[in-house]
Amino acid sequence: MAILCRPAVAVPEHVITVEETLELAERIHAGHPQLPLVLRLISNTGVRKRHLIRPIGETLEHPGFEVRNRIFEEQAKQRVPEVAAQALDNAGLQADDIDLLVFVSCTGFMMPSMTSWLINSMGFRPDTRQLPIAQLGCAAGGAAINRAHDFCTAYPELNALIIACEFCSLCYQPTDHDIGSLLSNGLFGDAVAAAVVRGAGGSGVLLERNAASLIPDTCGWISYQVKATGFHFRLDKRVPTTMGPLAPALRALAEVHGWDAAALDFYIIHAGGPRILDDLSRFLGVPAEAFRFSRATLTECGNIASAVVLDALSRMFGENALSAGARGLIAGFGPGISAEMAVGSWLPEAAVPWPRAEPVAARAAGGR
Amino acid sequence: MAILCRPAVAVPEHVITVEETLELAERIHAGHPQLPLVLRLISNTGVRKRHLIRPIGETLEHPGFEVRNRIFEEQAKQRVPEVAAQALDNAGLQADDIDLLVFVSCTGFMMPSMTSWLINSMGFRPDTRQLPIAQLGCAAGGAAINRAHDFCTAYPELNALIIACEFCSLCYQPTDHDIGSLLSNGLFGDAVAAAVVRGAGGSGVLLERNAASLIPDTCGWISYQVKATGFHFRLDKRVPTTMGPLAPALRALAEVHGWDAAALDFYIIHAGGPRILDDLSRFLGVPAEAFRFSRATLTECGNIASAVVLDALSRMFGENALSAGARGLIAGFGPGISAEMAVGSWLPEAAVPWPRAEPVAARAAGGR
Repeated sequence: MAILCRPAVAVPEHVITVEETLELAERIHAGHPQLPLVLRLISNTGVRKRHLIRPIGETLEHPGFEVRNRIFEEQAKQRVPEVAAQALDNAGLQADDIDLLVFVSCTGFMMPSMTSWLINSMGFRPDTRQLPIAQLGCAAGGAAINRAHDFCTAYPELNALIIACEFCSLCYQPTDHDIGSLLSNGLFGDAVAAAVVRGAGGSGVLLERNAASLIPDTCGWISYQVKATGFHFRLDKRVPTTMGPLAPALRALAEVHGWDAAALDFYIIHAGGPRILDDLSRFLGVPAEAFRFSRATLTECGNIASAVVLDALSRMFGENALSAGARGLIAGFGPGISAEMAVGSWLPEAAVPWPRAEPVAARAAGGR
Repeated sequence: MAILCRPAVAVPEHVITVEETLELAERIHAGHPQLPLVLRLISNTGVRKRHLIRPIGETLEHPGFEVRNRIFEEQAKQRVPEVAAQALDNAGLQADDIDLLVFVSCTGFMMPSMTSWLINSMGFRPDTRQLPIAQLGCAAGGAAINRAHDFCTAYPELNALIIACEFCSLCYQPTDHDIGSLLSNGLFGDAVAAAVVRGAGGSGVLLERNAASLIPDTCGWISYQVKATGFHFRLDKRVPTTMGPLAPALRALAEVHGWDAAALDFYIIHAGGPRILDDLSRFLGVPAEAFRFSRATLTECGNIASAVVLDALSRMFGENALSAGARGLIAGFGPGISAEMAVGSWLPEAAVPWPRAEPVAARAAGGR
């Protein structure tokens, strides 16, 4: 068994509202011939605010790839431990109960990965397997859940901790003025999220089956150009149309599991943008309300890349309205264009067939 | 079960001998106060030649991170398909038999990853899981084998293809003059390697158990500085001493499996450098000859990063001297400092309890 426990999420303290975003765009791109379109696209995202690791003034500066990447490292070391510790607490586990550490981020690059630093600083065992993933973009949240699921299927006594650390504001490129970039500047936000997948014990989403899907010949639709100035995010205008080819893959996953994707009890969907959510609910034949967790993530945080699915999950745990055995779908989408999908059912604490461990006291980051 | 089948390896056509390397170092660093030490260190690596994706003249130029990364992409697309196709043939499988595609490289960064491009261009199924790993450095070869092993343990009917694509020459940094960099300039080489891990069927190394190990507080010993000029490899002079703390982890893995690490029939060890191999054979109490495959890789190719273990494995398959049930150890080492280790036994074709598929005809790269 593999149980995805309650995620922990932290958004940074610096907030930018959509009004501030629009004002900024108007000011910075005053002469841009397609400014009205850009403003309309940003307004239509449904994003009300986003959280940033630094004040907007600093965010808009580009001090070079080296400095930015150093900021990523500093900020990750500062912000990840508390979230990781909370995710462990949520799962009733301690750092030394973890056997696989999955760290996903497409907004900073470190070698050794943050996984090594976390093992050294948070009391994970030296024999913890490390799985850093940098190249799956927004789909990496789903991929992290799925690879942790696979791992716990192989080793039912073991546990995985997954961490999504996305500081999208560090990929702001002031020299990029195409529509996709200007929209992205108003869409993406920063966040850190984490969750434990327990091989046995715990409560939450019992992961039952997972799958991946790639839309053929769409590699150029979402991509990074790697330059001396860092990662330049490229977003094709066809991306919002991708639910057409991906909805059948979601339906097929449910079907092979004996379920009907149109009649599930919960949906945790990557909130890439408003059209992704609108289209998918329509293609799957489910009411818009069914995607309320993802929509709340988009509204309150913007697109937080691989952290979206964990944030939306966290909101679902917070609503606490599912009955035992409620069936659902989790899906991350990202470059490729690819999807990482899972189906699972709700295993509330009361229904857990094993004694739940007492939550451990919060451990100070850097302790041990 | 998880059977690691015969790897395929390709080294590029441009060759640089140790004599040429020494001449170059003498010429380029004529005034360097520690030139004699550098020359001695390079001579002592035991590397006789290395293979490079481009002639040495072009290799020594730095056209910028963007261009270099584009060269990585072009060269990977040019060189990987043939090796991947050969690895599939070696395993008696076709592209559409593969369920997990693991692509490891620390010498270029692409998003979407090469996995997406390979799915589009080589006939892998759109539902193939993609696992690109960029941040485990030389340990990623071992990690790829181990994660493929985990995957096939979870899903015994499924198969994984692992690909290690390392163009270390693209990380040459002409402005780095510290001893570690100058040594690295004479140590690392380029190569592409691939192997299938079959959940059922096939012959080769039956993977039985794996483990990881991190030496505490050595994050700074092998690392990348990420700069506008790309990845700057940092090698601490303490790295050659790391077999002291890692040998016990290797012994422990064998022991928990009921084996004696000193008395195995084969050893496939990351050939990071000569001292790694010398020390480890001494610490494990095995004759130097036992590491002949890794030493041949180092001598003939240099340190080819994550591709070392697959190249050494390929040499072992080529020697074809193991008896059914022969026991062995595979270990990759890399930044962290970390190790990814596995124990397994030899399952020759004759001993395979299932009918071996006929090798499929070699498929043209890019074909379907």
